[in-house]
Amino acid sequence: MVEALVRHDGRVVSLSDLTQISELRRDPAQLVWLDVVLPDAAAVAHLGEEFGFHPLAVEDAVRRHERPKLDSYGDYLTIVFYAAGYRADADDAHIELQQLALFLGPNYLVTIQTAPITAIAECRSRWQRTAVEATPAALLHLVLDALVDEYFTLIDQVVEWVEELEDSIFTRFDPAAIQEIFGLKKDLLLLRRVIAPEREVLNLLLRRDEPLIAAESLYYLQDVYDHLVRVTDAVDTYRDLLSSALDSYLSLQANQLNQLIKTLTLSSIILMACSLIAGIYGMNFQHMPELSWQFGYPLALLLMAGIGTGLVTFFRSRRWW
Amino acid sequence: MVEALVRHDGRVVSLSDLTQISELRRDPAQLVWLDVVLPDAAAVAHLGEEFGFHPLAVEDAVRRHERPKLDSYGDYLTIVFYAAGYRADADDAHIELQQLALFLGPNYLVTIQTAPITAIAECRSRWQRTAVEATPAALLHLVLDALVDEYFTLIDQVVEWVEELEDSIFTRFDPAAIQEIFGLKKDLLLLRRVIAPEREVLNLLLRRDEPLIAAESLYYLQDVYDHLVRVTDAVDTYRDLLSSALDSYLSLQANQLNQLIKTLTLSSIILMACSLIAGIYGMNFQHMPELSWQFGYPLALLLMAGIGTGLVTFFRSRRWW
Amino acid sequence: MVEALVRHDGRVVSLSDLTQISELRRDPAQLVWLDVVLPDAAAVAHLGEEFGFHPLAVEDAVRRHERPKLDSYGDYLTIVFYAAGYRADADDAHIELQQLALFLGPNYLVTIQTAPITAIAECRSRWQRTAVEATPAALLHLVLDALVDEYFTLIDQVVEWVEELEDSIFTRFDPAAIQEIFGLKKDLLLLRRVIAPEREVLNLLLRRDEPLIAAESLYYLQDVYDHLVRVTDAVDTYRDLLSSALDSYLSLQANQLNQLIKTLTLSSIILMACSLIAGIYGMNFQHMPELSWQFGYPLALLLMAGIGTGLVTFFRSRRWW
Amino acid sequence: MVEALVRHDGRVVSLSDLTQISELRRDPAQLVWLDVVLPDAAAVAHLGEEFGFHPLAVEDAVRRHERPKLDSYGDYLTIVFYAAGYRADADDAHIELQQLALFLGPNYLVTIQTAPITAIAECRSRWQRTAVEATPAALLHLVLDALVDEYFTLIDQVVEWVEELEDSIFTRFDPAAIQEIFGLKKDLLLLRRVIAPEREVLNLLLRRDEPLIAAESLYYLQDVYDHLVRVTDAVDTYRDLLSSALDSYLSLQANQLNQLIKTLTLSSIILMACSLIAGIYGMNFQHMPELSWQFGYPLALLLMAGIGTGLVTFFRSRRWW
Amino acid sequence: MVEALVRHDGRVVSLSDLTQISELRRDPAQLVWLDVVLPDAAAVAHLGEEFGFHPLAVEDAVRRHERPKLDSYGDYLTIVFYAAGYRADADDAHIELQQLALFLGPNYLVTIQTAPITAIAECRSRWQRTAVEATPAALLHLVLDALVDEYFTLIDQVVEWVEELEDSIFTRFDPAAIQEIFGLKKDLLLLRRVIAPEREVLNLLLRRDEPLIAAESLYYLQDVYDHLVRVTDAVDTYRDLLSSALDSYLSLQANQLNQLIKTLTLSSIILMACSLIAGIYGMNFQHMPELSWQFGYPLALLLMAGIGTGLVTFFRSRRWW
Repeated sequence: MVEALVRHDGRVVSLSDLTQISELRRDPAQLVWLDVVLPDAAAVAHLGEEFGFHPLAVEDAVRRHERPKLDSYGDYLTIVFYAAGYRADADDAHIELQQLALFLGPNYLVTIQTAPITAIAECRSRWQRTAVEATPAALLHLVLDALVDEYFTLIDQVVEWVEELEDSIFTRFDPAAIQEIFGLKKDLLLLRRVIAPEREVLNLLLRRDEPLIAAESLYYLQDVYDHLVRVTDAVDTYRDLLSSALDSYLSLQANQLNQLIKTLTLSSIILMACSLIAGIYGMNFQHMPELSWQFGYPLALLLMAGIGTGLVTFFRSRRWW
Repeated sequence: MVEALVRHDGRVVSLSDLTQISELRRDPAQLVWLDVVLPDAAAVAHLGEEFGFHPLAVEDAVRRHERPKLDSYGDYLTIVFYAAGYRADADDAHIELQQLALFLGPNYLVTIQTAPITAIAECRSRWQRTAVEATPAALLHLVLDALVDEYFTLIDQVVEWVEELEDSIFTRFDPAAIQEIFGLKKDLLLLRRVIAPEREVLNLLLRRDEPLIAAESLYYLQDVYDHLVRVTDAVDTYRDLLSSALDSYLSLQANQLNQLIKTLTLSSIILMACSLIAGIYGMNFQHMPELSWQFGYPLALLLMAGIGTGLVTFFRSRRWW
Repeated sequence: MVEALVRHDGRVVSLSDLTQISELRRDPAQLVWLDVVLPDAAAVAHLGEEFGFHPLAVEDAVRRHERPKLDSYGDYLTIVFYAAGYRADADDAHIELQQLALFLGPNYLVTIQTAPITAIAECRSRWQRTAVEATPAALLHLVLDALVDEYFTLIDQVVEWVEELEDSIFTRFDPAAIQEIFGLKKDLLLLRRVIAPEREVLNLLLRRDEPLIAAESLYYLQDVYDHLVRVTDAVDTYRDLLSSALDSYLSLQANQLNQLIKTLTLSSIILMACSLIAGIYGMNFQHMPELSWQFGYPLALLLMAGIGTGLVTFFRSRRWW
Repeated sequence: MVEALVRHDGRVVSLSDLTQISELRRDPAQLVWLDVVLPDAAAVAHLGEEFGFHPLAVEDAVRRHERPKLDSYGDYLTIVFYAAGYRADADDAHIELQQLALFLGPNYLVTIQTAPITAIAECRSRWQRTAVEATPAALLHLVLDALVDEYFTLIDQVVEWVEELEDSIFTRFDPAAIQEIFGLKKDLLLLRRVIAPEREVLNLLLRRDEPLIAAESLYYLQDVYDHLVRVTDAVDTYRDLLSSALDSYLSLQANQLNQLIKTLTLSSIILMACSLIAGIYGMNFQHMPELSWQFGYPLALLLMAGIGTGLVTFFRSRRWW
Repeated sequence: MVEALVRHDGRVVSLSDLTQISELRRDPAQLVWLDVVLPDAAAVAHLGEEFGFHPLAVEDAVRRHERPKLDSYGDYLTIVFYAAGYRADADDAHIELQQLALFLGPNYLVTIQTAPITAIAECRSRWQRTAVEATPAALLHLVLDALVDEYFTLIDQVVEWVEELEDSIFTRFDPAAIQEIFGLKKDLLLLRRVIAPEREVLNLLLRRDEPLIAAESLYYLQDVYDHLVRVTDAVDTYRDLLSSALDSYLSLQANQLNQLIKTLTLSSIILMACSLIAGIYGMNFQHMPELSWQFGYPLALLLMAGIGTGLVTFFRSRRWW
């Protein structure tokens, strides 16, 4: 689906004919945002020819699982970025990354989505409604800011889950925590793998004296960069925290095991000692004087109780119980 | 709550009318410290307009959970910093971070507290009392130094707790140590997350040839920087130490478990062996010569004692006990 | 096996006489790709003399287990690179690295394979068929791109295996996972050991103003570099993930052990308690009133059942079961 | 205690009147080493005024637990360094760090000890005896070299302890090793925390073109720097080694536990099986033909022996014993 | 033992008189290699005076356990390097490092061995035989290359041992692997501690525009540098692998423990249940109807078998066996 928004006389109009769009783009007074969703390779190749993009740049835009990056081809820049969101399945929720390729030219922005990204759709309708953004760099900021804002939603979710995990470890001691910790760590690893190079992309945009980025847009892109630094910090902090949590869980498990074995030790040894007494008086020797005593039986029971009490006292004195 | 302290003729007077403050600020001979506590977004926006602050700078000042940072907007600087303190709850104490935004201009300092910070209140009353600080950079040092000094109080507390933890691990072997170690590690992680960028902020202030910072203030800000380096070092050292402590705890637990299982092994095997003897002489075979021996019963008891002693000796020889 | 492809008048012809090849190479209008498979040291030494290569460069080309590197000898470059593939044995599959030495001159590319590499053979036949590549740097890109593409095949395989491992850990709890995790980590370690310096090689090629690399080839080599960065990222991510997986496995094991010991504790203590009752009423005292009771036997059985139920209730109340 | 050594006409004389010292210092031909031990804040403030030191520099000199650092105040340098030694207590030995502040001027060195440092006292008496050092930088080298030499004594001690630990882990399997490993790791962490910035201090001294350091002294300070690098290396190596040692200990513990549980499993199962036989023939059924057999009793004993032997053989065949 | 090889008229002659050697050294046309083995401090001091070496350089040459380093004293360089080899003791093999100090001048190389190094002896006899090396830098390459080649022998040995270890962990599950892993990690740590700074030494030699190193020797020293990088890579890779191996071992141990405890749980519970039946029918109640049944005894045995089968089925259904 190809759709272009063109800013003209303070209004943003929508077009979908590529030839017409390409023509408008040649007029430097126009500002064109061409948005392509789920394109096939042929459509993008055609678009690339119309706009004069380098074949490698076109290839990167449609190939999936590219790494976030910034390439400068003289009169236009290409950027690969990612939208991140949680998709809840039947049994678990996992992070989902959606690739977005951007081409930034002197009076146009081309965005190619390999999967439909809600944040981009919202940006488009916002621009169409307000019609205030005046440069391609401002459009770029609009898009990147929307994508990075979604990372914060993710991080907030992670913070909430980590707090639930702490509770499930230290209060309820829930074994399902192990798999949840693993899942969260995996999500954070995958998230970090796109955020770290994205931060680098913005760093390059800010440090390089890029003529396509107007000076007044630099403050705004610096703001996006700061947000990415903050997300990276949060991801690293929570990865460390999850490792700590797993170590604590392991240690608590060992502790609980100790406690159980202590109980087993003491209880079974007491029971065995009493059984031995019973066994002894169950022997069939002809000459066992105790057997004929008047109070032999209650004395034997008393002996058992005495041994049990003695052992409990002994174990308590060794602080095993 | 908006309150400004203005230094005028060697006295520091307090004002709370924003228009009046803004007017005074325009006189370069005045030194204005405008302190805002718990402002609503509208008040800060209004303040930003009066002082001519960039919308992004104003937004950062009120948005919570910003990352410590330094932005230069030509004729003024913005800094985001954090106050840290411990808040004791009913059941546990946890670190609490309070965001402070600072705007440093040629003859003013604006501080915006998203939560009331005691250290700032003390700074203000100190300045009001002594009226000695002569430049905005000196006011900035006054505030940052007060915030960083509180980190040392935190670190001292951590050192104390770590020593208690060592005691509770190696002397009393207290299982509650696991959760305490986790809690302390979490606190240190969160603390590090603000201190590391704060150090970077001060580094930038010192390295950049910032005209707003008088040369004579650089020594003082260098001092604050040195303190932040020291706090970071301490945080890293104690994080390492806590990991070591948890490993030691785990190892000690395993050791205690070994000891218990040894006791169980030996005791239960001895008891079972004696029970077997008792069981054998409790069998009902018609032809069991021992049963009619005169001293069969005491001999059986002796046999049990002998087997017990033999097993103890055997286990001791294998160094299992 | 020595074979040269020479581009001449838009056609690529195949030659295998070294003297003839060396002569053609002296004509700057020719483009020669000399491919040597499994050479003996003497053949390479001879080749080195014909082309005037430095003895150290020749030595590196045939010595096995060199580290990927780039050396510049003025009018030619030498590169050591690796092809990576999986070789499935009878009992397990392991990564196999094959060394490739490249000499890049003004109008020639020499490739020396210490083991036959399929990807190179495909490149050669592709070039012979299409005859389109026009510079040595383009040939270099053709070869390196083919090698790096194979890394992605490996990584895809690893991703698949990691997902299987997750399943075998969390769903089937298969102990064979331990050895598989170790094997995968080892493979990733060995892979990383060649990829990290290969990335450095490409970085040097791109940053150095190398006259042998035409400017239009730089975009293509940058693309190969980006791919290597992506492979390194993936390797690091999956190494971290495998460590996490092993930690989780260990924790799950400890959990299962806890569960088993709980069952043992409870069951054996119940059985021992009942056995003690049976033992007591198996004693041979002459005066045991219960023995002559009409319902002594069923009462004893009831006592056992009662003790069992009581213990289950007690353990349940302590949440041990 | 304030004491100054003044080099005059090839002799080193001792003075303790601050006014006189301060006067002598004004003569560039004199070389003054002023050593202050355990000063109160007032004394140092007075000294600072006499020598014209910056208030911050004076404050750093007496405040405890400063971080090693180098500050340049134009015509003098301040350095904070640490002496390290072991102090043996009743029950354990722990590292002790003593802060030393140094002020290096064109013709003087001021050393302020917050606790008496033996190495400094030895330096002083050595200089007084030999009277050979000719510049303040040479005095500085004398002092720093003496402090760093003591680190090597510490490291040698650590090496010795690590070897004892290895022995106590692998040969005697002593559980006290856990706490010793923790103690050593803590000492190394605290030591590293002062050595790393001290190395940085010397690096700055060497790299900066400091006019106060004569060129011929640079070789000597480089030597001190090399020693600090070596100490840092050793500290890092032994921290890694101690972590390895703890992991090995944990693994050996698990191994010993396995061995014990194997013994328990086999022995208790054999004893239980034999007890079951005895229990069966202890049943009181009226119709149990074996009971009236002539050789019933020895056959029962044989059966027990047979079951025991069979189980041992079975466990051996499964390699459990 | 002092011995000098002097290249003169295409022949290499051997001298051992220090005064004569020192005289020859003054003739720039001569090339002198002075090799000193196991010198006492006095001999080296004397040598230092003859050659005019700085006292610090002489001190570093004889002091043991120096760190590999490069110092430039204007007209000569000093290098500290290490030879590494395995020395097999009665019970174990451990790495042995031997320090070598080198002084490189315009027409001489001085090597000082604190212990006899075989590789150096071989270099000397090779040079004496072939007499081909023409510059001091070429002699330096000859020596360093020989030392670094021995590291590869070490690494090959390590690779072999690691493979044996994998086998002993995963196939034979040999507990001695723990101590071997620790020993190997220690060796690799100690090896890394000399290799990392040696790599830095060669980096400095290559990057600095050192007049004592002829341009044609740079390729050769670059080759030695590449080898050191390769050794460092290998050391790091195998350290990581050994950590992985230990983790796997720990996990396998836990697994085996689980298996054993499962067996214990099931077997002992079955035996206890059967013993309880036997115990019940061994009670002496007067009114136990089963006791007088004709088939009471075989029915009791059947009951025991039934309970055993039932428990096995139950445990199997829970997948505990």
